[in-house]
Amino acid sequence: MSNPGNKTPVIGIVGLGYVGLPLAVEFGTKYQTIGYDICRARIKELQSTKDSTLEVEAEKLQTAKHLSYTSDPKDLRQANVYIVTVPTPIDKHKHPDLTPLVKASELLGKIISEGDVVIYESTVYPGATEEICAPILEEESGLKYLNSANREQLSKGFYLGYSPERINPGDKEHRVTAITKVTSGSTPEIADFVDELYRSIITAGTHRAGSIKVAEAAKVIENTQRDINIALINELVMIFNRLNIDTEEVLKAAGTKWNFLPFRPGLVGGHCIGVDPYYLTHKATEVGYVAEMILSGRRINDGMGSYVVDQVVRKMTQRRIDVIDANVLVMGLTFKENCPDLRNTRVVDIIREFQGFHAHVDVFDPWVDKSTAEAEYGPILIDEPDQGKYDAIILAVPHKEIIEMGINKIRALGKPEHILYDVKYLFPADKTDARL
Amino acid sequence: MSNPGNKTPVIGIVGLGYVGLPLAVEFGTKYQTIGYDICRARIKELQSTKDSTLEVEAEKLQTAKHLSYTSDPKDLRQANVYIVTVPTPIDKHKHPDLTPLVKASELLGKIISEGDVVIYESTVYPGATEEICAPILEEESGLKYLNSANREQLSKGFYLGYSPERINPGDKEHRVTAITKVTSGSTPEIADFVDELYRSIITAGTHRAGSIKVAEAAKVIENTQRDINIALINELVMIFNRLNIDTEEVLKAAGTKWNFLPFRPGLVGGHCIGVDPYYLTHKATEVGYVAEMILSGRRINDGMGSYVVDQVVRKMTQRRIDVIDANVLVMGLTFKENCPDLRNTRVVDIIREFQGFHAHVDVFDPWVDKSTAEAEYGPILIDEPDQGKYDAIILAVPHKEIIEMGINKIRALGKPEHILYDVKYLFPADKTDARL
Repeated sequence: MSNPGNKTPVIGIVGLGYVGLPLAVEFGTKYQTIGYDICRARIKELQSTKDSTLEVEAEKLQTAKHLSYTSDPKDLRQANVYIVTVPTPIDKHKHPDLTPLVKASELLGKIISEGDVVIYESTVYPGATEEICAPILEEESGLKYLNSANREQLSKGFYLGYSPERINPGDKEHRVTAITKVTSGSTPEIADFVDELYRSIITAGTHRAGSIKVAEAAKVIENTQRDINIALINELVMIFNRLNIDTEEVLKAAGTKWNFLPFRPGLVGGHCIGVDPYYLTHKATEVGYVAEMILSGRRINDGMGSYVVDQVVRKMTQRRIDVIDANVLVMGLTFKENCPDLRNTRVVDIIREFQGFHAHVDVFDPWVDKSTAEAEYGPILIDEPDQGKYDAIILAVPHKEIIEMGINKIRALGKPEHILYDVKYLFPADKTDARL
Repeated sequence: MSNPGNKTPVIGIVGLGYVGLPLAVEFGTKYQTIGYDICRARIKELQSTKDSTLEVEAEKLQTAKHLSYTSDPKDLRQANVYIVTVPTPIDKHKHPDLTPLVKASELLGKIISEGDVVIYESTVYPGATEEICAPILEEESGLKYLNSANREQLSKGFYLGYSPERINPGDKEHRVTAITKVTSGSTPEIADFVDELYRSIITAGTHRAGSIKVAEAAKVIENTQRDINIALINELVMIFNRLNIDTEEVLKAAGTKWNFLPFRPGLVGGHCIGVDPYYLTHKATEVGYVAEMILSGRRINDGMGSYVVDQVVRKMTQRRIDVIDANVLVMGLTFKENCPDLRNTRVVDIIREFQGFHAHVDVFDPWVDKSTAEAEYGPILIDEPDQGKYDAIILAVPHKEIIEMGINKIRALGKPEHILYDVKYLFPADKTDARL
């Protein structure tokens, strides 16, 4: 394969997190690949074949014979194809925070040369790659962005691609090579090139979208759809709790219909499901459409931590257990079970709400690196919960270690009178005191 | 099998529409079954082995050796198990219209005797069977409603069951016997009896829910989930249209992810998806929860007819085609393709919106019985559309006859300058002038 300048692809990857590293490793088995990350500690651990995100095992890392790691941007100059896999989070107003994307584009603008292709994998709203990133690259490089509209007039410049990441952290079945990848490019020829490049490593194949905007839109709606579906189940929980109906029982009955979708209630955290919809609603608002459906889903899901605490406090009060100065144990902190990923975990809402009631919160999570978590959330993590200490216990994340403890060992952590609340249906309804 | 009074089941079915007839036919192959319908014309056609809903073929009707049809309530007295399959529509304020359910309960109250079981199949909100139907049956019969809470004290009375219908009109794959059926009863013994009774005809098996309320809730959320998912796609359409992105192209790209759900935009009509959510939100509001998610889905889906007309009128205006006195052809009237079912079709919104613009609307639908449709919607149906007559053509329902006509024959119905709008992605995007 050759890129449009007929050069052998040399790949520079910007951002070596959950998305960039697995990709760098796959490309690094076939092509000369330079993996760049701004974080020196990350480069160091990768150079010693350790991946603290647990996405790529040491043996796998070693298979990438042509992959080198660096935190020096100058090392990226050898590349002619760049792939940007930086995070696209939201700020405290829930607006897109494009800072990492802008910084990566500024960095690449100083590095790229004529004929190079810059492919973005970060989730954005439709239009962002061409409206935000292209002008920065143009400005910094002095080169022109070449696309279907201008390539007849211009011949010198750089090209863009967009191929959204579909990484599912902790999912060992759906690894990067096993998930069909959507590809796109700024001209038909570049779209073909980008598609071929990915097809050479993605065994599940690719889907070449008609334009960059379509590929951007496809990505942002995937997680929006999950968000909405979980929001509906969360809304059902709030209705059925008022009607004294157990939601899990209803979901089991409905689940016997061939086309009922098996979503479950819960907190919606993580780097994508709780974030991506805000990218889409941001752009929708810009063009005059307030996305009521998507925003109401976000409102419900963002309110579930507070709802859980309301339910627990109500139950405590009914049993005459004081909330003020109560000891509360939250079991699980990550945004998803059996992985160490803390990004945008909404368990934090439960902790903060309890702290607002002057309760003392301990968090037990065997998957979490204590110092990483405490840097963000303060000194709340404990190594082992004490027996008989707690007025309320919240089963927040279904890590296998928590399930394996079993109901009796968990109950033993509570005072003689305590409330055990099950956010994730870890145990049968009659074994706990309340649940979503 | 025997019912709790150790009598051989004799089954009385109240309502012989899309739900009642297929059920009566199945029970009628095994048990003495009396099929009752208030409409004499319906009884007459069934007695001559014709089903105008096209759900049951003549040969199939003839297999029900033990099934008789009547419109005389007295004939129901022989039964000891009653199944109510009357419609549960909404009124013009979108509130549950329980009139048919109340009428059926009044009728049965005059007929039932001690030990009888009354099973409801109609979609209702959680609690309706016991809160609305049970008191009417008690009042009319002078018998007590026996349930888990009172059966220790009382021995004489009637029992209730609830087993929600899951009929999918026009779907020959998922027929009544091929869809797992949720069952429930007012005492554990009656729940077992109801479950066994259905299991004797449902080859796909049954799911015995823990209570009537759970079974009611399970049913009402099934269609609510579909409604919400279509509403999301409709919202995406409205966003992507503003961004000049073709929604179908985005859905195709997103559909290459293993867990993306393949919903399509469109009008949401019919007897259930556009109706059931209002039952749930009605009850939710009663207990103090305004279901923002479900209601925003309803708002979007109920507005799609109007949105389509806005889009067409905008397109017509851009091409300087007058809307006032324009000839508009709407192709398809039923709420779903390849079946004659007109219940709650939202194509009507398109017709009424155009009429509001002083346009003349013709409707072509080869599946629809002209007199039935005109009784409800006025003289809008035509046998064959004229060539070269129309300023705008709306492809509203993907009946196979419409698809088979092909784009050229459809275009030929329009004036030299006309707008062809594709609600259902019948044709590729570049073959029509606009689409959802």
